[in-house]
Amino acid sequence: MSDPLAQKTQFLAAAQAAADVAACIVRPFFRAGVRADDKADASPVTIADRSAERAIRAVIGERLPHHGIMGEEFGTEQPDAAYRWVIDPVDGTRAFLTGRPTFGTLIALLHDGVPVLGIIDQPITGERWIGVRGEATRYVSRLAGQAGTRLCPSLAQAELSCTAPEILEGDYRPRWEALSRAVKRVSWGGDCYAYGLLALGQVDIIAECTMKPWDWAALVPVVEGAGGRMTDWAGRPLRLDGDGSVLAIGNPALMDQACRLLAK
Amino acid sequence: MSDPLAQKTQFLAAAQAAADVAACIVRPFFRAGVRADDKADASPVTIADRSAERAIRAVIGERLPHHGIMGEEFGTEQPDAAYRWVIDPVDGTRAFLTGRPTFGTLIALLHDGVPVLGIIDQPITGERWIGVRGEATRYVSRLAGQAGTRLCPSLAQAELSCTAPEILEGDYRPRWEALSRAVKRVSWGGDCYAYGLLALGQVDIIAECTMKPWDWAALVPVVEGAGGRMTDWAGRPLRLDGDGSVLAIGNPALMDQACRLLAK
Repeated sequence: MSDPLAQKTQFLAAAQAAADVAACIVRPFFRAGVRADDKADASPVTIADRSAERAIRAVIGERLPHHGIMGEEFGTEQPDAAYRWVIDPVDGTRAFLTGRPTFGTLIALLHDGVPVLGIIDQPITGERWIGVRGEATRYVSRLAGQAGTRLCPSLAQAELSCTAPEILEGDYRPRWEALSRAVKRVSWGGDCYAYGLLALGQVDIIAECTMKPWDWAALVPVVEGAGGRMTDWAGRPLRLDGDGSVLAIGNPALMDQACRLLAK
Repeated sequence: MSDPLAQKTQFLAAAQAAADVAACIVRPFFRAGVRADDKADASPVTIADRSAERAIRAVIGERLPHHGIMGEEFGTEQPDAAYRWVIDPVDGTRAFLTGRPTFGTLIALLHDGVPVLGIIDQPITGERWIGVRGEATRYVSRLAGQAGTRLCPSLAQAELSCTAPEILEGDYRPRWEALSRAVKRVSWGGDCYAYGLLALGQVDIIAECTMKPWDWAALVPVVEGAGGRMTDWAGRPLRLDGDGSVLAIGNPALMDQACRLLAK
């Protein structure tokens, strides 16, 4: 099989250009009294989400016209392409709307359904995580921090993070609580930013559910390139048609134990 | 009665100097692998908390030796002084420990138990909120945002924030949930930073409990100087010997309705 990243330089340049453009679009709307519209699923969307996704699609579409694109706001183009971009212009719209600089723009490239490149960009603090399958994650930032997960020796010493208790629906909640009882501490909020913190060794484990592909695709190369692992709650690789459960862990040796606690 | 803020310039200079020194101390420990020790109440404390509190006490003690000081880590000095500083070197130690730039240094001056001056400082993003009783709050920052609460017209349109569901102990939880069902959206995380966001009109209401004086004293002049109000859940002024419940609201016209939902 040919190397899916043979054109890596070109792909990375497109991803970075798209993240740069999205940051320029999103930044002026931060804390600027943007109105939120409610989508069919009651989640909020703003002019920042819509404008940034259009711009990302424009950048990638011009550079790589044979690639597919799937985004949160404007659906799927070329769904049968081997290379597909999966994007979320503003992951953490609630954080964005409340003025927290902990949302992010997510840009992923998948090859045959497997994430091979991912960017997390925080346009207010100027932090960017760049993940490429098989390579060490890069963290480009004015803030302190170095890419590389922490090898937390046990769940009992682990920092668990979750965006919000409301996402833990149905039987996901007691399963998540079983994990939360086994860890040292829980912190809340964060969306994609928490996965970036895991890739910096600041957080040890994240378990979330009802995640869409654009919520997790870009995170996989970032977390795994930093030494961690990302799967669903059963320890299976994340798939576009998966159940929406996502488990990220800084020390892969703790994965089996976490999956046992999260099991049905 | 003489004006308790007759020496305002001197007090503000001391508060700002203390915040500057604390920021210099805390910043190098951010994302630097600091160890957390567990206190008697199981909350974490680090070298950053301890060093910054010592430095704040040194700055204030030299400049205003007749003032009392009460801090989270090192107890109370001169408890009978008319002027008492109430400080929290790192409010949001969990956020600090997980690398989130949403913790803060809190410095308050109370006169006869009433907060007359308050600073919220975020040393990583470089944001500072300065509140003086009877004056408009100032927000000094490289990030976007302007001091001034939002006059949210109804609870049904309000953004509610809370640091973590775990703080909602005992009968506080159903009371908080009654409020949360009445609002538009809930966002999690934030500690003092969420009150700063409320003072920027980004968040409309915050209801928390088990708060110590150093958690809320500095927030009062910031929030009220921005046009909001801060009370306990029964709508009473916050007191050093209060019940630890704290309600902050951007539009004071919604206060009665919020208190009714939070009532026992």
